[in-house]
Amino acid sequence: MRGVLRYRREDVVAIVDSTRAGETEEGLPVVSSVEDSLRFSPTTALVGVATQGGRFPPDWLWLLRDCVVAGLDVENGLHEFLTSDLSLVELAEQRGVELCDLRRPPRDLNVPTGANLDVDATVVLTVGSDCAIGKMTVALELDLEARRRGLRSAFVPTGQTGMAIAGWGIAVDAVVSDFVAGAAERLLLEAVERGGKDVVFVEGQGSLLHPAYSGVTLGLLHGSAPDLYVLCHQAGQEFVDDDPRFPIPPLGELIELHERISLAAKPARVACIALNTRFLGEQEARRAIANAEEETGLPADDPVRFGSSKLVEGLLKPGYRADLREERIT
Amino acid sequence: MRGVLRYRREDVVAIVDSTRAGETEEGLPVVSSVEDSLRFSPTTALVGVATQGGRFPPDWLWLLRDCVVAGLDVENGLHEFLTSDLSLVELAEQRGVELCDLRRPPRDLNVPTGANLDVDATVVLTVGSDCAIGKMTVALELDLEARRRGLRSAFVPTGQTGMAIAGWGIAVDAVVSDFVAGAAERLLLEAVERGGKDVVFVEGQGSLLHPAYSGVTLGLLHGSAPDLYVLCHQAGQEFVDDDPRFPIPPLGELIELHERISLAAKPARVACIALNTRFLGEQEARRAIANAEEETGLPADDPVRFGSSKLVEGLLKPGYRADLREERIT
Repeated sequence: MRGVLRYRREDVVAIVDSTRAGETEEGLPVVSSVEDSLRFSPTTALVGVATQGGRFPPDWLWLLRDCVVAGLDVENGLHEFLTSDLSLVELAEQRGVELCDLRRPPRDLNVPTGANLDVDATVVLTVGSDCAIGKMTVALELDLEARRRGLRSAFVPTGQTGMAIAGWGIAVDAVVSDFVAGAAERLLLEAVERGGKDVVFVEGQGSLLHPAYSGVTLGLLHGSAPDLYVLCHQAGQEFVDDDPRFPIPPLGELIELHERISLAAKPARVACIALNTRFLGEQEARRAIANAEEETGLPADDPVRFGSSKLVEGLLKPGYRADLREERIT
Repeated sequence: MRGVLRYRREDVVAIVDSTRAGETEEGLPVVSSVEDSLRFSPTTALVGVATQGGRFPPDWLWLLRDCVVAGLDVENGLHEFLTSDLSLVELAEQRGVELCDLRRPPRDLNVPTGANLDVDATVVLTVGSDCAIGKMTVALELDLEARRRGLRSAFVPTGQTGMAIAGWGIAVDAVVSDFVAGAAERLLLEAVERGGKDVVFVEGQGSLLHPAYSGVTLGLLHGSAPDLYVLCHQAGQEFVDDDPRFPIPPLGELIELHERISLAAKPARVACIALNTRFLGEQEARRAIANAEEETGLPADDPVRFGSSKLVEGLLKPGYRADLREERIT
């Protein structure tokens, strides 16, 4: 949950990690136990681990009990729910604390109604060549920049970290698969209600290329019915999940794949490239960005490192959305 | 659940449908109520309705109670579970009958392990231009024909009707979306265990083109890791869900889309076309099949109407799988 540290830094008082106790991160103390954290007066424990398959490591059961006993509310983003552990629920009731499972889906989901096709705001979805390369961060940064420019913009949280940051949303990867597109539609409509009258930035999930998560990606892609994509890629990365059996194709092919699989009723185009250059020096980073622009003919930048101006201008240049509308009609 | 009538005809004694009482279907009596059906000595009531979103129509609550009171086990394929209705569960316990929710997923699902990439059997997945055009039926027919020819073949049920027919499986559209590919992998491995040592025919779901269900389709496609696709299309159908906003592209484009989005680690090709010609006269049907062959350069047929020989021969011609393997290595 590095995103929470970045975007809700002011709400975090300490990090519990017994392997790094005594260090600091982002100016925050790292402590060895829940008990040690109490001198910083926390009110909520956020489960910061992400496991493959989303189950708790066995020793976490004790950690969670410690949190509840200490009187902390607990927020959890794993697929395994706190509220399914009846003894933990009972303990939480005794201690008067709340257990919040971010990934627990709403009960009344369904398939999309088609309202996603009739949204007036420009819908921007971040897509990418792999998981965990910054699709959420890019959506958050672009939303911030759009609002700085006076646009009525909203961020659409579709995963547990985005939800912990924004305080609302649905973790679409935890929804019954038949209802992923319906959940995405619901989020889109809610984002417009919440202020995204001009533009909404939908947090993308997974990758069309990813052998485990591609279904989530495509359901979200069709359900959020974007006008524009931001294609996210980690500069220099050659393989999905670093697995040589899954080479990442050139950016041009990725662009064409996403445009081609977009809804026939609302064709979307890739408007710009967000490069994650965290593993490169500054000069190399600038060169990678220039190469991506040359390769694709689209604006490219690393919004975390160099700011979001170029990408937002690329996305929202006057007439872009109008052009799209025209294409759709003809 | 027309598929159950077709493939388990000998296990069905009557159909309850108050709007058609007195008629017969496939030689079976249609009766107006559960009570009326009892003279045919049923043991199980199968919920035969499929609703958008998978909820029970309100008046079904009474029908289900009638079944339980009459001492019938109930099998249900909707997203709404019988076992979530505590009063029905209590009633079932009193009457000593079983409530079976076909779509309730196993508890211990996870993401794929990669074992799907190492299956020796040839994996065939039925894909299509829309929902409800016969992907399950084609997989069942091809499996039957393969077994008739002495191949060790198995059918892989991925939806509630396929499960009701085959007696095992997972309804992948009811699985948490992160685990669809993992569920598909598990089904594949189980099918090999169950006898599909030479070939398995995986029941496809939805369509990559469908605005509501495409996520399920892609998760299943990547998780089942096919070698070959059978592309299913209803002859003459122009739009997904008959919605003019979603035109179905030409077969050639559909072939290329499926081949392109297949796993980089196990590239799959479309081997043949299954045309559903139920709305055409015989001559028109034969013409549509010939046209599809000319258009695609692949064997095409309607296996329900004209038998599965041509398609099975197209799929399993000697060396086909070996060719694929070679491609993968180079």
